[in-house]
Amino acid sequence: MEAAVPKISDFPVGKENTDYARYFSGRSWLALLTSNKDLNVPMFNVTFEPGCRNNWHSHSGGQILIAVGGVGYYQERGKNAVRMEPGDIIEIGPDIEHWHGAAPDSWFSHIGIECNPKINKNTWLEPVSDEEYAGAVK
Amino acid sequence: MEAAVPKISDFPVGKENTDYARYFSGRSWLALLTSNKDLNVPMFNVTFEPGCRNNWHSHSGGQILIAVGGVGYYQERGKNAVRMEPGDIIEIGPDIEHWHGAAPDSWFSHIGIECNPKINKNTWLEPVSDEEYAGAVK
Repeated sequence: MEAAVPKISDFPVGKENTDYARYFSGRSWLALLTSNKDLNVPMFNVTFEPGCRNNWHSHSGGQILIAVGGVGYYQERGKNAVRMEPGDIIEIGPDIEHWHGAAPDSWFSHIGIECNPKINKNTWLEPVSDEEYAGAVK
Repeated sequence: MEAAVPKISDFPVGKENTDYARYFSGRSWLALLTSNKDLNVPMFNVTFEPGCRNNWHSHSGGQILIAVGGVGYYQERGKNAVRMEPGDIIEIGPDIEHWHGAAPDSWFSHIGIECNPKINKNTWLEPVSDEEYAGAVK
């Protein structure tokens, strides 16, 4: 299915993100961008098909998102969703519950950085329902 | 002089990098992209005018470069220079002596990540001479 992904950034798309599919509504693709463990900056490019988003979740070490292609959204629990376009950066503090994904009508790619990887743990929560998503991105 | 910088990426250009000018041959611009210290991922966009490069240097915590605009080069001591275009990522291990900068005929922007910021120290060495630069990028 990789041929179905349009070119929306300069970064590799990788493979369909089947390992984490249970935490996503919709299809996503994942490319690992770094490998030197001494640097402590694991970095991925994540590509979401239109309408795709991940479940509510949090990272005990925090996360940084760098939008690199298309249009997406980031929402922190209890706040309005934030529209993301290439060049936008979101810093997500430790244990902040949030979700991110594509706009309903656009593919989206962001680089994701796992912060403090030596202590980081991800906590996956409930899906973002269709109603919740529609309300957030309208 | 900021008006002189062409738009080559989606990321902010920031201000002319006068604080570090003594470690650069040519003019550069610097924009801080992150501010949450809990995340331990200080991130900057660095923009180099054509021909601009920094001195040979090393980081005790290592560094990651993410090319986002124009064309540049990265060289590790004792190795051939590597051409960098948007989407290219370079992982620089701790204490590796290197330089980076623009191509002779192109502006260049890369995001730079300071790795392991709690222990990182930068060591600045000699300039990359005109002859050395010309030989590296030819």
